[in-house]
Amino acid sequence: MSRRSLQHPAPDSAVLRARLERAREAAGGTGLVIAPGSDLRYLLGQAGGSLERLTTLVIPADGPPALVVPKLEAPGYAEVPLAELGVEMITWVDSENPYAAVADRLGDLERVAVSDFTPALHVLALRDALPRARQVLAGPIIRELRMRKDKAEIDALRLAGAAIDRVHARVGEWLRPGRTEAEVGADIAAAIVEEGHATADFVIVGSGPNAASPHHDVSDRVIESGDLVVVDIGGPVPAGYFSDSTRTYAVGEPRDADVAATYAVLQEAQRAAVEAVRQGVTAESIDAAAREVIVAAGFGDLFIHRTGHGIGLDVHEDPYIVGGNELILQPGMTFSVEPGIYQPGRWGARIEDIVAVTEDGVESFNQRPHELTIV
Amino acid sequence: MSRRSLQHPAPDSAVLRARLERAREAAGGTGLVIAPGSDLRYLLGQAGGSLERLTTLVIPADGPPALVVPKLEAPGYAEVPLAELGVEMITWVDSENPYAAVADRLGDLERVAVSDFTPALHVLALRDALPRARQVLAGPIIRELRMRKDKAEIDALRLAGAAIDRVHARVGEWLRPGRTEAEVGADIAAAIVEEGHATADFVIVGSGPNAASPHHDVSDRVIESGDLVVVDIGGPVPAGYFSDSTRTYAVGEPRDADVAATYAVLQEAQRAAVEAVRQGVTAESIDAAAREVIVAAGFGDLFIHRTGHGIGLDVHEDPYIVGGNELILQPGMTFSVEPGIYQPGRWGARIEDIVAVTEDGVESFNQRPHELTIV
Repeated sequence: MSRRSLQHPAPDSAVLRARLERAREAAGGTGLVIAPGSDLRYLLGQAGGSLERLTTLVIPADGPPALVVPKLEAPGYAEVPLAELGVEMITWVDSENPYAAVADRLGDLERVAVSDFTPALHVLALRDALPRARQVLAGPIIRELRMRKDKAEIDALRLAGAAIDRVHARVGEWLRPGRTEAEVGADIAAAIVEEGHATADFVIVGSGPNAASPHHDVSDRVIESGDLVVVDIGGPVPAGYFSDSTRTYAVGEPRDADVAATYAVLQEAQRAAVEAVRQGVTAESIDAAAREVIVAAGFGDLFIHRTGHGIGLDVHEDPYIVGGNELILQPGMTFSVEPGIYQPGRWGARIEDIVAVTEDGVESFNQRPHELTIV
Repeated sequence: MSRRSLQHPAPDSAVLRARLERAREAAGGTGLVIAPGSDLRYLLGQAGGSLERLTTLVIPADGPPALVVPKLEAPGYAEVPLAELGVEMITWVDSENPYAAVADRLGDLERVAVSDFTPALHVLALRDALPRARQVLAGPIIRELRMRKDKAEIDALRLAGAAIDRVHARVGEWLRPGRTEAEVGADIAAAIVEEGHATADFVIVGSGPNAASPHHDVSDRVIESGDLVVVDIGGPVPAGYFSDSTRTYAVGEPRDADVAATYAVLQEAQRAAVEAVRQGVTAESIDAAAREVIVAAGFGDLFIHRTGHGIGLDVHEDPYIVGGNELILQPGMTFSVEPGIYQPGRWGARIEDIVAVTEDGVESFNQRPHELTIV
């Protein structure tokens, strides 16, 4: 109903204070400038929000951090325990230059890191306010913290996984020939909230030829008997952590004769990738584990995306499970494993679970069966 | 229900082609890199959407523009008449570097302009892919086009204004003592859609002390007899243009004795600002017209924001009606006039209309009475 984030249970001050200090240490002398969004939520317990007016958390190499915020938006941060966190609030009004305030707080630095989704509007104004500082992304710094989830974060993701599993368990109630994707999607969206999410963040119902478009959402296409339907759904639970799970359904017997054999390849690829997950291997090795199965079966050209993405306070975050990513997996990392095979104009299928790297292997947060479910 | 924009009536190809050509001319030799969002919607008829993968419209100083898009998101652009617009589509897959493709298309330039809300992730990667080019904002270039609305755009904004007026006319149905702001807000959000908007983009219901917080949204505060309630609401109509209108309501007789005299000052300030609108004057002169009235009455410190913001495909866009903005108003410019007076901890009030600069003066798109409405 509004651009502002919902209130939610925030981590306690001791956790947030430790994160702020680890962020400063990880930055190693680089100043940090963190825009509203999930990095801010991770560090302050609140995502904040803004349009064109600058709101940002400034973490200098030395000295106390500051939250720079338009005066008229300051009341929105009343719940953040700034004093306990040792963060000063600096408010500004429309006739003032907030970038100068950021530069003052950072001092004369060689490098300043801006969070990955800071709008260019602010990036270039900060460049001009700090002409001597080289701008780099804060993502690679903050992701070192955010990638390894603590116990409370793992619990929240497990809860989210169980909630979206309950929605998938009910898909048969809604998916029938004669209904549109949009109608089915509306029922699913309502169930996502009913089953414990704060909101339904995305609902993909791709039927028939639309199933071959991985980022299709919903349309007015009427679902027909014989369709395959890709259902890729999720949202944040109140603590802010996301679910994201895909299952592929068949509306009666699939009309295409090649579905069964191809789907078996997909299922084997997804299983192989999950089984490859353990600490000490690279992110790209998980992508390769899925891709090798699909390529060997002759469908390599039809698997047109990476195998997965990290998940947490963002539905897409590090680590990305993609060729070229040599990141070493460590306990506490959480990501999707979601290979797909897409026959353009005819049908497509995808299977997606969220998994965590554990001390001794892998845990899946999604437990729904992987078989093609006939409804 | 999904991150993707709704389908909508897009301007026809001739209008879009002319906008693309005017954008190139306005850039004067600077390359343009336009991210998903309302600039893209203005130029291609579709806002697009993306998370961390680069989608961007590249308009070089010479040669055809290109839409660079992840291969798996390409089907989402099927409705854009790229061939008629002379725009080439360049798709990329996860193992490729899309920034090199952008650099190739732009060639060796001295300046490249990125749209204002391009994420830092892409801004800095483009900086590195085009090390010789100085990055500037595309906003000041594209706003020259977008600020002056054509007839179809004015019609859409007029339609949006009438739709939100119909919602304000019904506020008395919902605003009663004993209900929470959130309950009233939910009714208003539903009515915003019923009265012809595509979505309810924002709903501020600030009652009692919350009315003194200009960017409050809604809360579980129970509305009481004697409260003032600021209702600031809007959303886009299907063509993408926004409404945004504020009225202040009193729930029975106001409990604070200073309301009547102060509100009269606010009403006079808003009227003075609207009457000051005409072509040839500066944006800041409209802010000054409102502010002088409020300062003269001794409430200057309680008017803690600018007088207004432009509106169109974005709810906040140029021109900003703020001290220091010497922009000369021209026919077709559309913006809010919304002074407010806020008594911290007690009450607040704001009056907001959207107006257009016309050839011979000003047109207001909102017609609801400006008096404090007692419900």
